[in-house]
Amino acid sequence: MTSDDLLRPKARTPRGFQDRRAGALASERQILEAVSKVYDSYGFERLDTGAFEYADALGKFLPDADRPNEGVFALQDDDEQWMALRYDLTAPLARFAAEHWDSLPKPFRRYAFGPVWRNEKPGPGRYREFLQCDADTVGSERPEADAEIIAMAVEGYAAAGLPSGATLLKINNRKLLNGLLEAAGVGEGGQKLAVLRAVDKLDRLGEAGVAALLGAGRKDESGAFTKGAGLGAAAAGSVLAFLKAGAEGGGRRATLDRLAGVIGGSAEGDAGLAELGRIDEALGRLGVDQTQAVFEPSVVRGLEYYTGAVFEAEIALPGVDGERFGSVGGGGRYDDLVARFTGQRTPATGFSFGVSRLAAALSASGAVGAAPARGPVVVLALGDDNMGDYVAMARELRAAGIAAEVYLGTSGMRAQMKYADRRGSPAAVIVGGDEIAAGTVTVKDLDLGRELAAGVSDNRAWREDRPGQVTAPRADLIAAVRRIVEAAP
Amino acid sequence: MTSDDLLRPKARTPRGFQDRRAGALASERQILEAVSKVYDSYGFERLDTGAFEYADALGKFLPDADRPNEGVFALQDDDEQWMALRYDLTAPLARFAAEHWDSLPKPFRRYAFGPVWRNEKPGPGRYREFLQCDADTVGSERPEADAEIIAMAVEGYAAAGLPSGATLLKINNRKLLNGLLEAAGVGEGGQKLAVLRAVDKLDRLGEAGVAALLGAGRKDESGAFTKGAGLGAAAAGSVLAFLKAGAEGGGRRATLDRLAGVIGGSAEGDAGLAELGRIDEALGRLGVDQTQAVFEPSVVRGLEYYTGAVFEAEIALPGVDGERFGSVGGGGRYDDLVARFTGQRTPATGFSFGVSRLAAALSASGAVGAAPARGPVVVLALGDDNMGDYVAMARELRAAGIAAEVYLGTSGMRAQMKYADRRGSPAAVIVGGDEIAAGTVTVKDLDLGRELAAGVSDNRAWREDRPGQVTAPRADLIAAVRRIVEAAP
Repeated sequence: MTSDDLLRPKARTPRGFQDRRAGALASERQILEAVSKVYDSYGFERLDTGAFEYADALGKFLPDADRPNEGVFALQDDDEQWMALRYDLTAPLARFAAEHWDSLPKPFRRYAFGPVWRNEKPGPGRYREFLQCDADTVGSERPEADAEIIAMAVEGYAAAGLPSGATLLKINNRKLLNGLLEAAGVGEGGQKLAVLRAVDKLDRLGEAGVAALLGAGRKDESGAFTKGAGLGAAAAGSVLAFLKAGAEGGGRRATLDRLAGVIGGSAEGDAGLAELGRIDEALGRLGVDQTQAVFEPSVVRGLEYYTGAVFEAEIALPGVDGERFGSVGGGGRYDDLVARFTGQRTPATGFSFGVSRLAAALSASGAVGAAPARGPVVVLALGDDNMGDYVAMARELRAAGIAAEVYLGTSGMRAQMKYADRRGSPAAVIVGGDEIAAGTVTVKDLDLGRELAAGVSDNRAWREDRPGQVTAPRADLIAAVRRIVEAAP
Repeated sequence: MTSDDLLRPKARTPRGFQDRRAGALASERQILEAVSKVYDSYGFERLDTGAFEYADALGKFLPDADRPNEGVFALQDDDEQWMALRYDLTAPLARFAAEHWDSLPKPFRRYAFGPVWRNEKPGPGRYREFLQCDADTVGSERPEADAEIIAMAVEGYAAAGLPSGATLLKINNRKLLNGLLEAAGVGEGGQKLAVLRAVDKLDRLGEAGVAALLGAGRKDESGAFTKGAGLGAAAAGSVLAFLKAGAEGGGRRATLDRLAGVIGGSAEGDAGLAELGRIDEALGRLGVDQTQAVFEPSVVRGLEYYTGAVFEAEIALPGVDGERFGSVGGGGRYDDLVARFTGQRTPATGFSFGVSRLAAALSASGAVGAAPARGPVVVLALGDDNMGDYVAMARELRAAGIAAEVYLGTSGMRAQMKYADRRGSPAAVIVGGDEIAAGTVTVKDLDLGRELAAGVSDNRAWREDRPGQVTAPRADLIAAVRRIVEAAP
């Protein structure tokens, strides 16, 4: 090691950030393009905001400390104001809507996509920068606005390449459980929080576990005791009946009927039921059936700001562990974000696609993006004097719609073939001295070579249908390449 | 003002950042999609890196000061390492290439696009966050790699929607002037720097001004004196002849011949000429003629790291002040970025599209993106009981490929028409009690209303060819809307 080495920085990706190459980007790009088209067709307008927001606009207030903004990437600007990178796309929308409310067409429908940043501890598959893609309607209290958001999500997943039946939108309404607890005499505060925590554990602990947590409490396998919410038997029974109302089948309307029987009475519960009834009707008119979207009273979304309907998209793909990917999107109705700035309650509803997670699920399933990225046809560089010809051949191929490049290094033929293989090229064009003299080109089938190596094709097929390589007159370059590129599986 | 008002944050866009709505985004999106397709066709692989790099990787070293990173947005991570938001796309490429050099196919061709951030004083039209779109080839010293980059830039501008002749790629080579100065006995250091500064002022001061600055010096109109480079008459004459070699026409080859006459002799100058000769030949084979790319010895690109060929794209659009937009892209050959990490010189060449600036130029010219964004067809909401019908109509329109939405606010008809107008909707679908009873729909032509308001159409046309609104049977909704949407100019 010389002293120069010591001065040199080490090339390394920052902790929790990632470099992504073409293969990893392909499904993300496909998702964003497909989902954007759906949003456009519904009249949603694209909005881009900057990466930074003033920290107070993000709702994080600043102590005088070294780490002023737990959870976000923050820094102080020249004028002493704290700015932070956005941690989601909703806070910038709230700021934008509040800033321009008077001049916006109302209701204001917008969609947005881009990276968001979270200053959290990174881990395997857990990054500090990831993509979101959101659609929101601000300024409409109509349940049809929620239904439209749900229908766009359903269409968005289909447009992104998910097979029918691979995602299920689960819909709930915060007002239902609120109404039920109100009817059972449970007020706001500690007891209600304990009930919500218990409800959220249904997947993990099952009915008996939740029943214990709703009542006196539960002892787990290690013997540790968790104090329960202290509901009486009747109230706990109502909550359990409520949670099961979605699982008993019969479609959205049947779920609503069962819920009406459980909740009956409280004004808030009735309001929630009426909203879901109108959502159900609008979903029907939008062609969203119960295989695509269901009412599921056990859905609890963590974010405190939801005030009405909430949505969650779950994935069920062959070969994909649903638990591993969990929710691939979600949203709901919220009223307070804009009010933080303006003091005016402004109804809003929206949905956020977890693009990175969805892309990972699609890749894992093999549904999309699993095929290795297809490289360009590579024209080998076999003599400095022929570079002009090689350049012209690549141009002809591109003009015929075939991605193509000239090898631009200085290595020998063997290394060039290896390069073409590593690029995932379907074919290599080989024009050496012999070909130049004869006025021909040789085209080698690289996909076939890969198949043989993988044991997919046998030697017989190689010899007969796909000869491995062909030599053709120079004038037939395009046809010869096309024959090989299109023979690929 | 209440105490609540005092606690509320003010909704405001951070200084030097911008919110962009659909109209402003349309041309940017078109540019990125079109240019990406060109890059794909040349076999360039897309690469995304994170927003942050470690500060040492950006080449900014850190003093112990309050503002450790002049010009970039930097912050200190939990582990005390300084990170900064990328200020261009080249530094992350250099870091990535150095980090993965052994496992990359070589030469490595990649393209990238995304925001970059500069912590500079914002001003009108001068933002602290803007888009770049770069293509680079790392690991090829062949002039054909430069030619390919130039050809992609030419094709990229055309694909982005610029009319033929609207951009001109100007190509120079650092080695030419170096060679000429070497032949004239000018060494590295202050004198050479003074020559470069003088050359860079050709546009502003003209030939006489530059001649003065190459010699003893120049007194400007205010009487202030700038000391010159102190070249003798012969050397200064050579530099001026060099600078004019591009302006005398006759094509790239003729420029090279004139340059050979001026520079003749130095090894570095000859190397530069040979490279340009091979670039010229390859450009010819790539179909890039001298109306699209010229050799222009007066091009000086500021960045110190260029070591060979340099490129600059200038825009000339009717109605667009070229000076105002200046360069809309540029690049060149550089050898040292990867070497900073690895110690190994690695030849590289690339081009960066100034996407934001190009989009602004396109909008200003009216060539692209000047048409106001087209809104969706708006189905008015004229009765709560009919919402299901309205939702269904919008769905039918979307299924027929027409972007459509239901008005989801609660205002009256007048406000709804105003809303549709502000959305830029081509048509409004009006179905009130009368239409429901009669089984009809009324479709209003909003584009025509805008034309009449703007004085583009007269009343006569309105009455005869375009009736302003039509009433049709409900079953003919799509046809009625299509007739009006397609009648639009």
